[in-house]
Amino acid sequence: MDSLTMRKPDDFHVHYRVLPMLRAVLGYTARVFGRSMAMPNTVPPIRTASDAEDYRVLLGVYNKWKHEVFMAIKLLASTTPEIIREAYLAKVIAGKVYPVGVTTHSDDGISDFRQQWPNFAEMEELGMMLSLHGEMPGVFVLDRELRFLNVLEEIATAFPRLKIVLEHVSTADAVDYVWRNSPDNVAATITVHHLVLTLDDLIGGMLRPDHFCKPVVKTPADRMALVMAATSGNPKFFLGTDSAPWSRKDKECAEGCAGVFSAPVALPLYAQVFEQAGALDKLEAFASEFGAQHYGLPLNEGTITLAREPWEVPQSYNALVPLYAGRIIDWKVEE
Amino acid sequence: MDSLTMRKPDDFHVHYRVLPMLRAVLGYTARVFGRSMAMPNTVPPIRTASDAEDYRVLLGVYNKWKHEVFMAIKLLASTTPEIIREAYLAKVIAGKVYPVGVTTHSDDGISDFRQQWPNFAEMEELGMMLSLHGEMPGVFVLDRELRFLNVLEEIATAFPRLKIVLEHVSTADAVDYVWRNSPDNVAATITVHHLVLTLDDLIGGMLRPDHFCKPVVKTPADRMALVMAATSGNPKFFLGTDSAPWSRKDKECAEGCAGVFSAPVALPLYAQVFEQAGALDKLEAFASEFGAQHYGLPLNEGTITLAREPWEVPQSYNALVPLYAGRIIDWKVEE
Repeated sequence: MDSLTMRKPDDFHVHYRVLPMLRAVLGYTARVFGRSMAMPNTVPPIRTASDAEDYRVLLGVYNKWKHEVFMAIKLLASTTPEIIREAYLAKVIAGKVYPVGVTTHSDDGISDFRQQWPNFAEMEELGMMLSLHGEMPGVFVLDRELRFLNVLEEIATAFPRLKIVLEHVSTADAVDYVWRNSPDNVAATITVHHLVLTLDDLIGGMLRPDHFCKPVVKTPADRMALVMAATSGNPKFFLGTDSAPWSRKDKECAEGCAGVFSAPVALPLYAQVFEQAGALDKLEAFASEFGAQHYGLPLNEGTITLAREPWEVPQSYNALVPLYAGRIIDWKVEE
Repeated sequence: MDSLTMRKPDDFHVHYRVLPMLRAVLGYTARVFGRSMAMPNTVPPIRTASDAEDYRVLLGVYNKWKHEVFMAIKLLASTTPEIIREAYLAKVIAGKVYPVGVTTHSDDGISDFRQQWPNFAEMEELGMMLSLHGEMPGVFVLDRELRFLNVLEEIATAFPRLKIVLEHVSTADAVDYVWRNSPDNVAATITVHHLVLTLDDLIGGMLRPDHFCKPVVKTPADRMALVMAATSGNPKFFLGTDSAPWSRKDKECAEGCAGVFSAPVALPLYAQVFEQAGALDKLEAFASEFGAQHYGLPLNEGTITLAREPWEVPQSYNALVPLYAGRIIDWKVEE
């Protein structure tokens, strides 16, 4: 195959941050994806309808592409059903739970999941998505996702009409739960970096801050389970890059920040993973259909074409180191 | 207990590097330990009697303490039994195997362990110690030590009089093998950082280059097995810090170097670990007897006293970040 033309994909999990980072990174997603969902763990966080409105306006100023950004709010201990309702009326499509301390800017995250139940009930009623960073605080880093599955199951069972996304699944355990044991209201996003990296790439050779993210990349068996899920054609798994830019100063320091900047390489690299798994025919559904279907959104109208030609990923974009910097990818977005 | 006076300990595994680093770090070990064994993976490596002589002289120039440094040579594909013999005659007490690519300066390491057997036979004959970085190249990072145990067992069985040290054990599997299944000629060193750190301290929060070492720190269960082994009174486990200094520039960068600089805090921190395990009475044997016995050396003559008083570890020593920088340790070396 020389090229692949597919429906414009959606990225249901991306970090644009605030200015000046936002200006530097928005285009890498907006040029390729038809729509995206912006994560609300900015500084300051996006907590309310008003915050979301401000952020939408800010993105609009710099969004020169035919690209729509969906808003989410960060659920905090102070969030109320009224705040949820107002956000929904302001076209916020999701509320995101960050368990306390498990990732970037989560010091104000949730420690008591039960305390959020009135909010979940309101979201269920309104048809607003619950987006979960699925890691249990205080647990050994490699076990956090597994231990969170009980919380997920409890929520999914208590609110059977609440639509839920378990974001950036990273373990075979989570894949197995979502695939075989979760109710219909649960789906999961899979990042491209979790499809191509393991702990070997983070700590197996020299220490690689560019491969440090949360949830951390895991074992070869976990990676293979993720590839299997992504390429299976099961609509419970869809694309969310969790592209998370940091300056080199924030990554290469005494306390490095978590996040992989994958936006510029995401779609070609997903294509490479799918092709290597013999499942290129499943890419379009994973990237452009299953997410929209779970969110209850129409599919994108336009198309995008990937050329099958070796592409050497630049060492940096606007001084940001991308995933696969300097490496060759078998696919390239056609301009 | 207000203080603990014990026989001068030995550190059978320490990295002094070359100048100017050597000058900056030697004293932190030499002030506290009666003797130490210097690792030979310097740049350039210590491969021969002549290299070892030069390194011994260099150390002698800067060694202003009542402290003896033992020499080891690095076993390479080019090492011959004659090289071994000459080294032995030059008072080199150990030959060290670095499997290729598993740690700092191991690109010239061993890929074919069988090829070393003539050297092992010579070392067995002479009574020279085989020191092993026990990780299997090419294997997933968390499984490397486990997979190396087969190699260790093969060597230990083929050369029953060859004395072997499995350095810096990091897993419950290695502890279990050494403790319950290894022949008499096998012992192991345990670093202080593997006794206090897990992957949570490396990748569980922010990325911490100061906690990055090889073998990488592992799970809570692994750490507990190491504490149990160190504090057990089993003479197969003894002290080797693997203190490995790097400049902040080498640690906090795009490809960070592996090594924890523990020399300034090692003995007080071992004491804290032993006390917390209710085994302070086992510290002296672990630190000052079992190693010397395995190496066939007399015990040190002098003593050292640790005061039981809170000690805040400095943020850096000569611009090097030590283990537990800025933290309080319950014990302090009395000057």
